[in-house]
Amino acid sequence: MKNAPRTTDEGKRLFRQVYDHIVTRIERGEWKPHDKLPSIRLLSEQLRMNRLTVFRAYQLLKQDRKAYVKEKSGYYVSSGNQEHFPVGHEGNRPLSASVHLKNSMNDIQQIPVVYQFSQALIDPNLLPNLFLSDYVKKVFDIYPKLMGTYSTPQGDAELRETLGRYLVGELRTQLTASELLITSGAQQAIDLISRTFVRPMDAILVERPTYSAAIDIFRQQGARFHSVDIQPDGYDLEQVENLMRTHKPRLFYMNPTFHNPTGYTVPSSQRKRLVELAERYRCLLIEDDAFHDIYFDGPPPPPLFTYDTDGWVVYLRGFSKYVAPGLRICAVAARQAVLQPLITAKSLADNGTPLVNQKIFLHYFESERMRQHIEKLRTALHMRKDIVEEELAATDWKWVTPQGGLNLWLQLPESLSVEALLNECLRQSISFVPGTICDPLGEMTSWIRLSYSFVSEGQLRDGVKRLADIARR
Amino acid sequence: MKNAPRTTDEGKRLFRQVYDHIVTRIERGEWKPHDKLPSIRLLSEQLRMNRLTVFRAYQLLKQDRKAYVKEKSGYYVSSGNQEHFPVGHEGNRPLSASVHLKNSMNDIQQIPVVYQFSQALIDPNLLPNLFLSDYVKKVFDIYPKLMGTYSTPQGDAELRETLGRYLVGELRTQLTASELLITSGAQQAIDLISRTFVRPMDAILVERPTYSAAIDIFRQQGARFHSVDIQPDGYDLEQVENLMRTHKPRLFYMNPTFHNPTGYTVPSSQRKRLVELAERYRCLLIEDDAFHDIYFDGPPPPPLFTYDTDGWVVYLRGFSKYVAPGLRICAVAARQAVLQPLITAKSLADNGTPLVNQKIFLHYFESERMRQHIEKLRTALHMRKDIVEEELAATDWKWVTPQGGLNLWLQLPESLSVEALLNECLRQSISFVPGTICDPLGEMTSWIRLSYSFVSEGQLRDGVKRLADIARR
Repeated sequence: MKNAPRTTDEGKRLFRQVYDHIVTRIERGEWKPHDKLPSIRLLSEQLRMNRLTVFRAYQLLKQDRKAYVKEKSGYYVSSGNQEHFPVGHEGNRPLSASVHLKNSMNDIQQIPVVYQFSQALIDPNLLPNLFLSDYVKKVFDIYPKLMGTYSTPQGDAELRETLGRYLVGELRTQLTASELLITSGAQQAIDLISRTFVRPMDAILVERPTYSAAIDIFRQQGARFHSVDIQPDGYDLEQVENLMRTHKPRLFYMNPTFHNPTGYTVPSSQRKRLVELAERYRCLLIEDDAFHDIYFDGPPPPPLFTYDTDGWVVYLRGFSKYVAPGLRICAVAARQAVLQPLITAKSLADNGTPLVNQKIFLHYFESERMRQHIEKLRTALHMRKDIVEEELAATDWKWVTPQGGLNLWLQLPESLSVEALLNECLRQSISFVPGTICDPLGEMTSWIRLSYSFVSEGQLRDGVKRLADIARR
Repeated sequence: MKNAPRTTDEGKRLFRQVYDHIVTRIERGEWKPHDKLPSIRLLSEQLRMNRLTVFRAYQLLKQDRKAYVKEKSGYYVSSGNQEHFPVGHEGNRPLSASVHLKNSMNDIQQIPVVYQFSQALIDPNLLPNLFLSDYVKKVFDIYPKLMGTYSTPQGDAELRETLGRYLVGELRTQLTASELLITSGAQQAIDLISRTFVRPMDAILVERPTYSAAIDIFRQQGARFHSVDIQPDGYDLEQVENLMRTHKPRLFYMNPTFHNPTGYTVPSSQRKRLVELAERYRCLLIEDDAFHDIYFDGPPPPPLFTYDTDGWVVYLRGFSKYVAPGLRICAVAARQAVLQPLITAKSLADNGTPLVNQKIFLHYFESERMRQHIEKLRTALHMRKDIVEEELAATDWKWVTPQGGLNLWLQLPESLSVEALLNECLRQSISFVPGTICDPLGEMTSWIRLSYSFVSEGQLRDGVKRLADIARR
């Protein structure tokens, strides 16, 4: 994954993105049959892209009969391109959803299996369920009218005060309750950020590989992807700076701590420098820190947000992964210039996370029991990770032992087809995430993500054995 | 509000929308200084608009120095248009949120007042709070692991089964659990629909006046508005057909039963015909039916969804208004071609409404106590509406007595400035909603919406007296 050989790949991907962008607009009827398409010069300037990339996209449009050429005039939209409304109408106008509306991970996770290694979720048996239920009852005794009350869009003030104090301790930086927004899970936060700051064909940076739902969310918004390789020792900062300088991305969505799917952690030494680059190139860093508290041997380095003095880092701290998944609570920390439009977007999206969920979370989060729970959880997850590594020791698969998080990122021999393996596994009630859907370029065909957090220890050992067996055959 | 005199107004509004559209794209850097703007002919074709409308927008751009003219060549983007990131950077690239990100209603409702007439919410004292709290405890006894479990994006199957059976009875039409999606409130449903089916500059229809958050949501998506007047006896169907034929709107967002803000109900006779028009002109009808159960003398006519055989109606049934506002539960009923992309959009937006909320709602909704509650609630709201009408009888304000819902829509004398009245009222701790923010054209300057559902009977009488007093002075 060095720079030089990837240039061609990236060029190839880029021209596909231009192609998709144009086809989408044609299918939605924005550009109609026999409309003139923008000139190659104009479009390449607008998209800050090489003319050759745009030229290749236009060539493919021609080849696919989506467009035709008039000599000395340019490219025109062909007729007969429009999608039709699937109910079977003969009308002349399409009613189609956004073409890029897709949730790849969800497609896999919806399949019911016994050995559920595709869900990066905590085994419900590891949560203090009875205690939680009792807690909920207490909360309703404290706030008897809780069910009849809305939250403000920004989130319950009491919860923001508490989380503000907590995060100041963790982040070692100034942070007030007014600089926090409560969202329904980190995924909603990513979506609100995408809607607020990304426009169609805006360049953005994502890690390669990355969280597949983030790919789907930014793709829905029509973003143009550039990818930053993440390795066990972090990013190639020269690559990051090159991408920022060349493509002027709006944002860099990153998960630098116990990264999903790889488990890698970007070292302290790179964090400060990344914030400097963000300031210099005016690129928002979206720091998703969902796994911060799930470490095995010791806490991770301070977040990038700690080094940010100028408002270029947006910090997402989801608690769904371990506090109470069913509540869907995430805190977004950002400075006012960025937070205010996000609060408005949240108010339009759902008018605020339900107050019930926020109050239950608040009181549980503050409890002593919660501190004990997280200690126990770390140990339990550490043990599960060790079990998987033990079982996999007999294979020729490669991985880097993670220091935290919920996932192992496994490189399989190239001779093995991950697609065939997944199909056979699903038949035998085992699921995992194929690496391709975590890859913005869709090319990591020899990798899989295996989550060790959801099934019990016994099932984990049994399931990994079976998985390795299937792979051997 | 007849057709003829509105044409000019509408023309005026349209050219402002084109102007705003272009300015937004310039400010976001999509069109850069000295880029050539699309020709008037091309843009008017793309937007299905009169060339004169586009011409006027371009004239205004020139006048405001957003664009300049090169003779015999066309319009070009001026330099120095770009917004700057408010943190104070000198960089050359803007980082701006979507220009139309705004929530007008929220701005008013965030102001704490004693006489809260701007919130169309149920007084928490009218809800069976103790019963609800007890109920929550029971639910946690039934599902001890509820807090550790996610819902599917489409919503809990048990809840969808129950709501499906219930709605079949109410809607008198076929409906299965697979044709329902659970969202976090009706507002989220509107937002998901807007994102899925509306693209920038797509034409849509909304009522005039309408729910102000819906205006803000569709505006955020860059929709081009055309408005259908709603009167005590419904719509002017000729106006609806004209608008559908001329502008080919993607959808018509409507609230035909105890309409917000007017309280009017579209009569049965028009409902079937509206579904026919929707089919004919391929325009989705988004039927928001939040007030269906809040009637005074008798139930409302069947929803438009009842008459729909071909999948052109999307039915939104929010329960936040009266079952348990704090839970934020809404059911979206639609046929597969429309529902499937909405489920994907929901999965990307927040991965599903929290299961806790769905299960609590489900068990409460099925309870006998719930049936009793809704009966009592109708009586209580009827009484509150009567109180307001009694107090207003002494004024020269005009209104039509609503048969259900939470709001009175009041026409004040033209001599009275609603803006000045609101400012003085807020100073005296009274709030209401000015009609202009419910009007897609922003011109209903003599109207206000007064919600009688949130404050107690005593406060209601007192507050309306004070409001009328302030108006008299």
